[in-house]
Amino acid sequence: MLNLVTYLNEKRQIIDHALDAAMPAPDERPTLLHQAMRYSVFSGGKRLRPILCMAASNAINGTDDNAITPAIAVELIHSYTLIHDDLPSMDNDDTRRGKPTVHRKYGEANAVLAGDALQALAFEILADSTMPDSTKISLIRELAGAAGSRGVVGGQVEDIAAINVPPDADTIRWIHLHKTADLFRTAVRMGAIAGNATAAQVANLGQYAESIGLAFQITDDILDANSGGKRSAIDTPSNCMHVLSAQDARKQADEQIVKAMAALKLIDGNTIPLEAIAQFVLERTC
Amino acid sequence: MLNLVTYLNEKRQIIDHALDAAMPAPDERPTLLHQAMRYSVFSGGKRLRPILCMAASNAINGTDDNAITPAIAVELIHSYTLIHDDLPSMDNDDTRRGKPTVHRKYGEANAVLAGDALQALAFEILADSTMPDSTKISLIRELAGAAGSRGVVGGQVEDIAAINVPPDADTIRWIHLHKTADLFRTAVRMGAIAGNATAAQVANLGQYAESIGLAFQITDDILDANSGGKRSAIDTPSNCMHVLSAQDARKQADEQIVKAMAALKLIDGNTIPLEAIAQFVLERTC
Repeated sequence: MLNLVTYLNEKRQIIDHALDAAMPAPDERPTLLHQAMRYSVFSGGKRLRPILCMAASNAINGTDDNAITPAIAVELIHSYTLIHDDLPSMDNDDTRRGKPTVHRKYGEANAVLAGDALQALAFEILADSTMPDSTKISLIRELAGAAGSRGVVGGQVEDIAAINVPPDADTIRWIHLHKTADLFRTAVRMGAIAGNATAAQVANLGQYAESIGLAFQITDDILDANSGGKRSAIDTPSNCMHVLSAQDARKQADEQIVKAMAALKLIDGNTIPLEAIAQFVLERTC
Repeated sequence: MLNLVTYLNEKRQIIDHALDAAMPAPDERPTLLHQAMRYSVFSGGKRLRPILCMAASNAINGTDDNAITPAIAVELIHSYTLIHDDLPSMDNDDTRRGKPTVHRKYGEANAVLAGDALQALAFEILADSTMPDSTKISLIRELAGAAGSRGVVGGQVEDIAAINVPPDADTIRWIHLHKTADLFRTAVRMGAIAGNATAAQVANLGQYAESIGLAFQITDDILDANSGGKRSAIDTPSNCMHVLSAQDARKQADEQIVKAMAALKLIDGNTIPLEAIAQFVLERTC
């Protein structure tokens, strides 16, 4: 019987330790930059993407050691996108997780640059790791594709454009897929690749994660619309609650989790943590 | 006898063709993002860094084909840094090379994101290229190091900080080294690595390029201070003319070129184009 809270905490500690070791020290020049990078990365995130990366590796008998570098590379990319998404020219958020956003604390220029440096660091640690070169190249290709204009950045551009042109259901789906699901899928595919998965295992785990990512964004949209939280549904044009009833949104999230579970069934391995995380994504309340 | 103008034009055509082939089409979704990326990359730059990359490869008997992918990867990084440097939160420039800057034409959010996507694309094309995996990893490591917090981004952070704390000569030198010379050195080292240079050749060519980069920035500072151009010396706190006489600045640039030429002498190969580019950097008037 898996205790998910214990599991998540254990993985989170491994990830936080590795992130600390991979990042330049806060007293290394330029100190302000390195402090801003650390402020962003150690701001209390759930570490869901890197945990999924490690769980995917574990599922096909890969070790935590196999997966730790891709796991933290994904988290560095995630952190940089949060810094840039929060900028005044984008979501203009003053706080994130109850603390001042990076640009509020370190200034806008340093926030842009801290994000830029985190992106470079993600690729640097993959290139510097001790994995076989062919594995490193597969991982860098995965991550660069997901991070680029056909992935997360593309999703964010259309999310910004949605402020001026209210998006239809198809466009919202496109935004969810690229802005959110692409990095989930890549995190899990990278864990699988690092654990020497077969091509079929990589594909099925990737399908699992894409569905998890879509379910995550839908539940995020439901939580935003229902709460007096960080942003109301009205402020977020790509919130699916603009075009779906609460019931239909919930139904779509449920369907994605069913799809995720079906993809996991095709994996020959220990998928219990991945199943539990899928339920966690669906049932989370914050 | 080398005709440098012809040489530079020939290389520039090869580079522009490869950049065009490597970048997403302007009608690929999100079209605005891909158009902004292309607007930045095809805005009339001199292509000095990618030309140096190819010339370094040629010097040690590497082909243009060996060097073209690292050459354009460096140029994508250079383009992204120009977009971000021009942002309102940084240099707040309205024009670059006589045309509106990316944020003036496409909006600030899209400018940040176009830069982000260009950085990811640089690593993606290296990972996707047909070079041996070990070469690709060496190149990605070089580029990520130069692009990160210990390289170009670190230099830019201290350049921004210099607005509030007038920098001394050592700090200005540090900024020049990281903001400018790091990408020159990396461009040339990558060309050498892609052409299968020995470790000694990579090191000597890297020394050549670092000196070229420093000379380039000093001549840039002299040109800025003397012209009613894009930015006066007073507006740029890291301009070395704040702490040097025109004569001393010119002398430092000369010394760097002497150093560059001395490093080239240690290379067993055809260094004529690299020598000519060194003179060009020193004598340029725009």
